[in-house]
This record gives sequence, structure tokens and C-alpha cells, in this order.
Amino acid sequence: MAEPNHRKGCFVGVDLGGTKILSGVFDHSLRPLATAKLSTKAERGPAIVLQRIARCIQDAVDEADLALKDVRAIGIGAPGTVDVSDGTVILAPNLDWHEVPLRRDLEELLEIPVQVENDCNAALAGIHAVELKGKSPCTVGIFVGTGIGGGVMMDGQLQRGGGYAAGEFGHVVLDLDGPKCSCGNRGCFEALASRRSLIQRIKTAVKSGESTLLSEMLEDLDSARSGDLRKAYRRGDKLVRKVVDDAAHCVGVMVANLTHVLNPDVVVLGGGVLDALESEMMPSIEEVTAQRVMGNARKSFRLMCSELGDLAGITGCAYLAKEFSV
Amino acid sequence: MAEPNHRKGCFVGVDLGGTKILSGVFDHSLRPLATAKLSTKAERGPAIVLQRIARCIQDAVDEADLALKDVRAIGIGAPGTVDVSDGTVILAPNLDWHEVPLRRDLEELLEIPVQVENDCNAALAGIHAVELKGKSPCTVGIFVGTGIGGGVMMDGQLQRGGGYAAGEFGHVVLDLDGPKCSCGNRGCFEALASRRSLIQRIKTAVKSGESTLLSEMLEDLDSARSGDLRKAYRRGDKLVRKVVDDAAHCVGVMVANLTHVLNPDVVVLGGGVLDALESEMMPSIEEVTAQRVMGNARKSFRLMCSELGDLAGITGCAYLAKEFSV
Repeated sequence: MAEPNHRKGCFVGVDLGGTKILSGVFDHSLRPLATAKLSTKAERGPAIVLQRIARCIQDAVDEADLALKDVRAIGIGAPGTVDVSDGTVILAPNLDWHEVPLRRDLEELLEIPVQVENDCNAALAGIHAVELKGKSPCTVGIFVGTGIGGGVMMDGQLQRGGGYAAGEFGHVVLDLDGPKCSCGNRGCFEALASRRSLIQRIKTAVKSGESTLLSEMLEDLDSARSGDLRKAYRRGDKLVRKVVDDAAHCVGVMVANLTHVLNPDVVVLGGGVLDALESEMMPSIEEVTAQRVMGNARKSFRLMCSELGDLAGITGCAYLAKEFSV
Repeated sequence: MAEPNHRKGCFVGVDLGGTKILSGVFDHSLRPLATAKLSTKAERGPAIVLQRIARCIQDAVDEADLALKDVRAIGIGAPGTVDVSDGTVILAPNLDWHEVPLRRDLEELLEIPVQVENDCNAALAGIHAVELKGKSPCTVGIFVGTGIGGGVMMDGQLQRGGGYAAGEFGHVVLDLDGPKCSCGNRGCFEALASRRSLIQRIKTAVKSGESTLLSEMLEDLDSARSGDLRKAYRRGDKLVRKVVDDAAHCVGVMVANLTHVLNPDVVVLGGGVLDALESEMMPSIEEVTAQRVMGNARKSFRLMCSELGDLAGITGCAYLAKEFSV
């Protein structure tokens, strides 16, 4: 009798975030078998985070009724600049990591091949492999969450750039005199449409006397998640509607900008803000895009929201682990 | 005795612009042998323009003491969207061309293989082949002239996008509430830094009472060329300085934006405005770029001005003609 599919070996994807680690076990066809979650505790330093990544992988493998020896390869998406040739995290501000040899250290610890990639690149690779079935040669991914990142795929290959720093869409300037960004410039996409920037705008408005349902819903506006924004939006909160609608407009402008640079076949949107507020934001994004994208670029491209949600990152990491291990 | 190099066959590059046609004959090593120039007369329609392209090619070939039979292949750069697979100009607003089968018609007329390309893509290919010696895998070209265009090269290959509309940098929005652009949107790069937009700003300022040396130098401000702007700038014209300095700032922001999207090895600048005002604009462009480009993208990229000037387009067209004919 043939072994069940996942007994032939499975692949693990890990999404390493600033606050949490998400891991998932996938079979050969990239079907998810189990996931696990753990807080990152980045403040304890890279060595401890490494132990927690290993524990989170072990948890997911256990959950799938498998053992580490069944894992053929591991892919990890890190929130920063990654030298994919040797798996070093060059810079990850949210983790306060500089030049951390993640692949080397994790391979030593687990004795399993490890592939490290930028988290947004990994998510784009996952969406491309699973949702787009590997079609769409030129695909751009825009991920709007706490911050904003992205990825570029040409001829079906991730384009990382000469310094592994391509796809930093959050720091594309859309508004020369716009609000200050954490990077020091003004009017970056991230300062206009990230969850952090939306909450900042809401807080500023509340200070100057405007009201929002979020003040009743939450003890602290800073703790507002994208799901809270959705609830307030649906309950008719004027301030939240204004702020979210403006963000949707900016996402539309960004889609048009990237279309004028690369004329991709597909632009895919994802990330916590868009996952939670898709039905609120997409009509406006589509309208802005339809108005602004010119001529032949308009005819030839498709705009879509990823349906993988949180799973995009770990799916992509498992995909990259599989790609590099065969 | 060996024949002189160009007797082995030469290549012709043609830069088809809205107002003039420039053609050049190149030897096998892409050294220019002769050039010729003719007005386009686009208003007379595609069939007449085709005749004029042929005449301009004939003029350059004559000038080089060669005959049409010595021409191995012709490359043409057209100011619009080009389907390079069949050499059709899909859309060229400055010529008022829609779906003109330029390759087919010119091959019929001259019985020489013809390659058609977008003019900015051709210029980038020429700069990449001749100035960068084919190195620099990921290269981005920004061409600031009457309008603004560009090109993207990855792994040494032009990236045209799914609808042959990549590299339309002129319509990347940098300023959400910026000045109106001819495309209908606001704050496009072209509405902030093209020669047309600079002259528009100067005219508006003059109407509201400001003065400029250009009013003494020229009968009509609309006729101001980039060289006129340079003269006025060097003679200390405050209005021209302000307008040109603002444009340089925007070019710097655009360089940073493209660096955050693609993390290229080289960003090359060209076009009439930058050719004429290089020493006035580059310090500011470099300063803005150094301030804004983040982390690893900054370390890994080089910013340069092309030295080919007007010849970039025809050199690139000759290069593409040669590439496709061997």
C-alpha cells in the first residue's frame, strides 16, 4: 500500500514577524497539514528567537502527527533584507537584527536544510505558486499591514535587486508634502496607508475633538487591530470611514504607479489591513486604478486580493523550501 | 587586404520623434559613421512619415559613403507603445498613430529587416550596451525631455511588461494634490519635471507678475528649449532657478522611488532637460537620492548621467537591429 502523501516528506514554512512566529507544515502538493503560533520575544535577542522558531516548528510538526525527521526542508520569511545566497538576515528593524546568519544557525540546530527569504517575497511566491498556479509571468504583490511591503516577480522569478532590497513599496513617495514617515521622509506610501499610519491619523483627530466608536470599543487606540477598524467602519464610524477610504485611494494610486513602472500581468493585494477590509476598500481601489492606469497597461493587467490571508507567508516559505530542496 | 569594418555590413538606428526624425549609421562595433535629421511632419499621416523615415535613412547612409545594400538591419525607436513581436506601433500620441504596422511597411519599402522598439527602451538598451558595456544586470533609465519616459532592464534584458507598457515613469504620481497632468491625473512625475511642465510653471509665474530673462531672450516662452533654460539658469534667473531646482528635487524622489521598487544596480539619467542641465541638476538629484534611498539599496546602486545625449536612442536602435539580425 502506498504511504499517505505527507509520509513522503513534508515542508515547513515559517513567518517570522516582529511580534509573533507562525509556522505551518505542508505536504508535497503544498496542502497545509497543521500550523502553530508563538510570540517572538525579539527583545531577548537572536539566539532566543532562534530557539523559539525551532519550538514553533516542532509544535506544528507535532500537531500534524509527524516528526522532525519527516521534514525535508524549512523556509523562513524574515521581516527585512535577506541575503538569500547564504540565508543571512542583513537588516530587520522590527527584530533589531543586523547580519544574523539565520540559515546557518537553524541548520546547525535542526539538521534540516533551511531557506531564508524576505517575508513579502515569500508571500508573493506562495500566492504565485498556489493561487495563480505558477502562471502570470510578471506579478507584483502589495502587502498592507502594520507596515507595508511588497514583491516583484518577472518571468516567474522573484526579483530581489542587487542589494536584496527590491519591493520596498512602503517607502515609495506618493505625496511630496505628505505626513512624516518613520524613515525620515514625507508622504511615503507606508505613512499614508499602513495600519500604523491609520491609527496615528485617528489618534490625532481624536485629540483635536473628533469622535470614533473605537474609543468605546478599546481601552487604548494603539491596540486597534484591522478587525476593529472593520467593525467601526461597518457601524458607520465617520472618522474611521474617512481614514480607511483615503488609504484605499492611496493603494489605488500605488497600484497605478507600479503598473506604469512594470506593466505587470497581475497585481495582488494582501496583508492584515486588506484581508480585514477587502470589501470596504476594493471598490475604491478598483475605481482609482481603472481611472488612472493608461492604455495598453490597463487592458493587459488584472487586480486581485489574495485569499490566502495569513497563510500566504508560510505557504510561500514552504514552496521555496520545496523548490530549493529538489 | 581585409575590407574596412563597415563594409562587412552596417546597422541603422532611427529615433522617430514627434517633431523630428534622427537616423544614424553604425558599424559592427556600434561606432557611429554618420547621422541625418529630418522633420517628422506627423500631421501628414503615417504613410508620409514612413517615406520620410526612409529618406532620412537614405541620407545617413549616403553621408557615410555607403548604399542601402550595405545595411544589414534597421532599428527604430517610436514614441509610444510598441508590440515588439510584430513591430506594430500600438499607440503613439505625439504622432497620432494607432496600430501602425511600422515594421511590415518599412520592410516592404526598403527590403531590409526592421526592428521596432519603444524609444526610451531603445535608448536604455544603447546606454547599457555601449556605456555600461553590457554589465549591470538590473538597470533603470529615466529620460527627462519634453515629456518623460523610461525603461527597465532585468538580468540584462529589457522588461516590456505584459502590454508593452512598462517604463511609463512620466505617469508615476509623486504628489497626490500636485499640478494637473495631460493624462488627466494630478502630480504625475511628468507634470512636475518635464520641459513642458517647467515652461508651464514659468508662464504661469510670468502672468502673475514674476519676471524671467527668458522673456527677453525669446519671442515666445513656449519655444524655450532646454538650452535656453540653462542659459537663464547660469545668468542667475531666479524664476528659472527655482523651477529647475524643484524639478531636480522631483527627479531625486523618482530615483529613490524606483530604487525602492527595483533596487537596481544602476539608474541612468538622460533626455534633453538632463543633457542640457546636468551640472545644474545633478548635485540636487544626488543629494535627495543619498538622503532617501534606504539601507542596502543605497550601498548597492550607482546613479549616472548618460554621455550619449541625443545619440542614445539611435545607438540603442542600431544595437537592437544588430541583436535581432544575428
